[in-house]
Amino acid sequence: MDVIGLRSRVVLGVLGPVLWLLSGFLIIPMMVALYYGEPLHIFAIPLVSAVVIAYIFTLFFKRQKDEWNRKEGFFIVASTWLIAAVLYSLPYMFEGVPPINALFESMSGVTATGATALPDIESHSKSLLFWRGLTQWLGGMGIIMLFVAILPKLGVAGRQMFRAEVPGLQEEKLRPRIRETAKILWLVYIILSISEFIILKIVGLSTYDAITHTFTSISCSGFSPYANSIATFSDPLVEGIFVVFMFLGGANFALHYKTIYSDRKSLIKDQEFKFYFLIIVSATLVLVYELYRAEVYSITDAFRYSIFQVISILTTTGYASVDFDLWPDSPRFILFLLMFIGGCAGSTSGGVKVVRLLLLLKYAQKVLLNVIHPKAVIPIRFNNKKVPDDVIHSIVSFLVIYILIFAVSSTLLSMLGMDFITTLSASIATLGNVGPGLGLVGPMASFDNIPDPGKLILIANMWIGRLEVFTVIVLLTPAFWKH
Amino acid sequence: MDVIGLRSRVVLGVLGPVLWLLSGFLIIPMMVALYYGEPLHIFAIPLVSAVVIAYIFTLFFKRQKDEWNRKEGFFIVASTWLIAAVLYSLPYMFEGVPPINALFESMSGVTATGATALPDIESHSKSLLFWRGLTQWLGGMGIIMLFVAILPKLGVAGRQMFRAEVPGLQEEKLRPRIRETAKILWLVYIILSISEFIILKIVGLSTYDAITHTFTSISCSGFSPYANSIATFSDPLVEGIFVVFMFLGGANFALHYKTIYSDRKSLIKDQEFKFYFLIIVSATLVLVYELYRAEVYSITDAFRYSIFQVISILTTTGYASVDFDLWPDSPRFILFLLMFIGGCAGSTSGGVKVVRLLLLLKYAQKVLLNVIHPKAVIPIRFNNKKVPDDVIHSIVSFLVIYILIFAVSSTLLSMLGMDFITTLSASIATLGNVGPGLGLVGPMASFDNIPDPGKLILIANMWIGRLEVFTVIVLLTPAFWKH
Repeated sequence: MDVIGLRSRVVLGVLGPVLWLLSGFLIIPMMVALYYGEPLHIFAIPLVSAVVIAYIFTLFFKRQKDEWNRKEGFFIVASTWLIAAVLYSLPYMFEGVPPINALFESMSGVTATGATALPDIESHSKSLLFWRGLTQWLGGMGIIMLFVAILPKLGVAGRQMFRAEVPGLQEEKLRPRIRETAKILWLVYIILSISEFIILKIVGLSTYDAITHTFTSISCSGFSPYANSIATFSDPLVEGIFVVFMFLGGANFALHYKTIYSDRKSLIKDQEFKFYFLIIVSATLVLVYELYRAEVYSITDAFRYSIFQVISILTTTGYASVDFDLWPDSPRFILFLLMFIGGCAGSTSGGVKVVRLLLLLKYAQKVLLNVIHPKAVIPIRFNNKKVPDDVIHSIVSFLVIYILIFAVSSTLLSMLGMDFITTLSASIATLGNVGPGLGLVGPMASFDNIPDPGKLILIANMWIGRLEVFTVIVLLTPAFWKH
Repeated sequence: MDVIGLRSRVVLGVLGPVLWLLSGFLIIPMMVALYYGEPLHIFAIPLVSAVVIAYIFTLFFKRQKDEWNRKEGFFIVASTWLIAAVLYSLPYMFEGVPPINALFESMSGVTATGATALPDIESHSKSLLFWRGLTQWLGGMGIIMLFVAILPKLGVAGRQMFRAEVPGLQEEKLRPRIRETAKILWLVYIILSISEFIILKIVGLSTYDAITHTFTSISCSGFSPYANSIATFSDPLVEGIFVVFMFLGGANFALHYKTIYSDRKSLIKDQEFKFYFLIIVSATLVLVYELYRAEVYSITDAFRYSIFQVISILTTTGYASVDFDLWPDSPRFILFLLMFIGGCAGSTSGGVKVVRLLLLLKYAQKVLLNVIHPKAVIPIRFNNKKVPDDVIHSIVSFLVIYILIFAVSSTLLSMLGMDFITTLSASIATLGNVGPGLGLVGPMASFDNIPDPGKLILIANMWIGRLEVFTVIVLLTPAFWKH
């Protein structure tokens, strides 16, 4: 059956196995619940329901060998995240979370955002909070997979942005090697996760704390089982470990692989990585200066909290080692600006991405040169290669759409009665998959403070932002639903 | 002499006569001062100094017939506004205004912005406040001239945006007819000004009030000699008259001309005008709803204050018929968004301009369609004509540069210790040549609340924003200063 150019055998033939996979992950928190002697049904019921539906799916729709067309691709990707969010919201509901809050929390999980709508996090069971972290770790894995294997095929987030020119990762030959590529990147992801877990154990965290925080830092997502986030530990050493792993999580995973397996200098030769580093250093210095000058902290504490918060926000993790919403306006403004940037392409972070900002600045420079010399041909170079015009155009159009969504979602939020700072920061904190914002949605507050219609807008923002905007937005255009 | 590609005989050969002209206008407030028996020296000293300098200029540099090259064009235009701002700041200084505040006030005048740095407006002489309004009326005239005759030649703000396809205004044949074109537009400007003056007199304003407010409404600039702006009159009829003339000032003057002299339907057939109207209607309705719901006003008062404030802000006039900074956050947020838009191209208003927003939305639509159908050729149409790609690219690049300047100036302001709302609104209120912002720079407050380095940033913003960004920004690039 062929509906508006979507072949049901293709779409449902993929979504069936996707549902199998998604439901399978629910077994893990069941084991945790068993270990802690907590109720199993909050995971068991969703698991069984999903398995039954998935079974019916696969009975009727066999997985096909057909290539997806573009429309099908967008539909499948957007649906996968939406189905995951809905399915994974059920355990929250079984612990008494209202449906919209549960969907908010779950979407924040699978999109690795980290914005929470639970007013009292610590009142929930250990297994649910473990699950909450796990969804983010899985979300992070999903994002890498998406970036490597699917989005480039759909013409979103251009292949050039991924830069996976390593043996086994040649972009041109990507398709026959998707499995191989994915395996390699997951290997990197898992190696980094295990390393972080071990280090956190060594410095004295409990196994539970070490796992849940590994889940949510390497994936740049930011759920902590504690209401006070990382401030709970109040330990510079622990904060330092998170700084390192958030930093790595926000860098390009293909370059991590290259650095480990072929060229040690892959990361530091990369222009995006250098710019990422530069942003962190300069933002940290500004913050140190601001916080020290405003006499908020001593110089060492100013450094400690600045570096943590800059990396946490820039990588769109959203951990807080202190309630930065209590800082004066100027350091908060710097953090607000960082929310628009995000980490590197091919990382687990969200936002506009450093490479887009860098190419945008190069584009602005070219435009200004062309104003003076209209006939000069000024190529834009990245990593010593000329960037094709269509890549620049796709970046610029990404920015245009991104800003429009930001403006629309801010306006709607504002009309729901939110104040200026809450409005602006909640919009970008969700669209950029950062997590906490400022004001009513600050790091120690909860998105439960936003009225339900506002939560729905922000759920959409997380979904749109995570899938590189176009993937979801095209589904909302009338043209998509015409044949 | 030829310095970095600027021929001094050309540049100074133009700036000499420009200085003559600029100094000539100082005679008008002298007559006003004479009439009110106020000190003459505050205008006489600047006048004499400027005349002496202009005389020396013209002695050494005869005006040349040479065509300007692009660099010279940018330099001449940017210098003209800067020289005007510096020269016209002297009268303020002679009345005891500190130099930076005086320059701020003067730049706000010649750029028709309307942001004031005078902490106590009404303490100044009538002739100075008359002068303050006159600079805005002249600024408005200068802007129209710039848009018609100069910017299109420099490849800024594209000819397409001006749409002057009337007899005597053919763009292709513009150059030999600059005088004629300018005369026609000034005629429209003067007719509208005289009409407004007469109507204001009829409804009972004093001659002084009628002149000073005509100066600052038809030019979309917003200086009032009263600290409480239009709230001083507190008269719905007077407000209604301003609504009409601000609305006309924010529309395309070439279309006004066409409407008067050839096709009555020129304005209402124009897509930009329709969209301009649509924005006003929808923003007003939202504001009425918000203000009524929040029980700030009765329904009639909500309408009265909403329509006035929407038109005042959208046209970048900046008058206030009430202290809108006391409104709840959501109507303030709507006004904040309107500051980014501005009025129509070819009007006296500032901002990004309605036509750019409209084409940007059409571009976004095209981009989304192309995501679904990558090979489809989707032309962007405006007034039933295909818009060439280079026009779209120039609009998009304008937006990119505009946002970067906004981000940089906001960051700098924020680092000077300004709060969030003041930072964001002061940046856009000056860059968009609106006038007042929110918070510390609200409509009943003064930019004197901003520290001096901040005032310098905002002076730059007004200058940059008024000259369609590129004109000034290219002067700040190293490339401009290389041969």
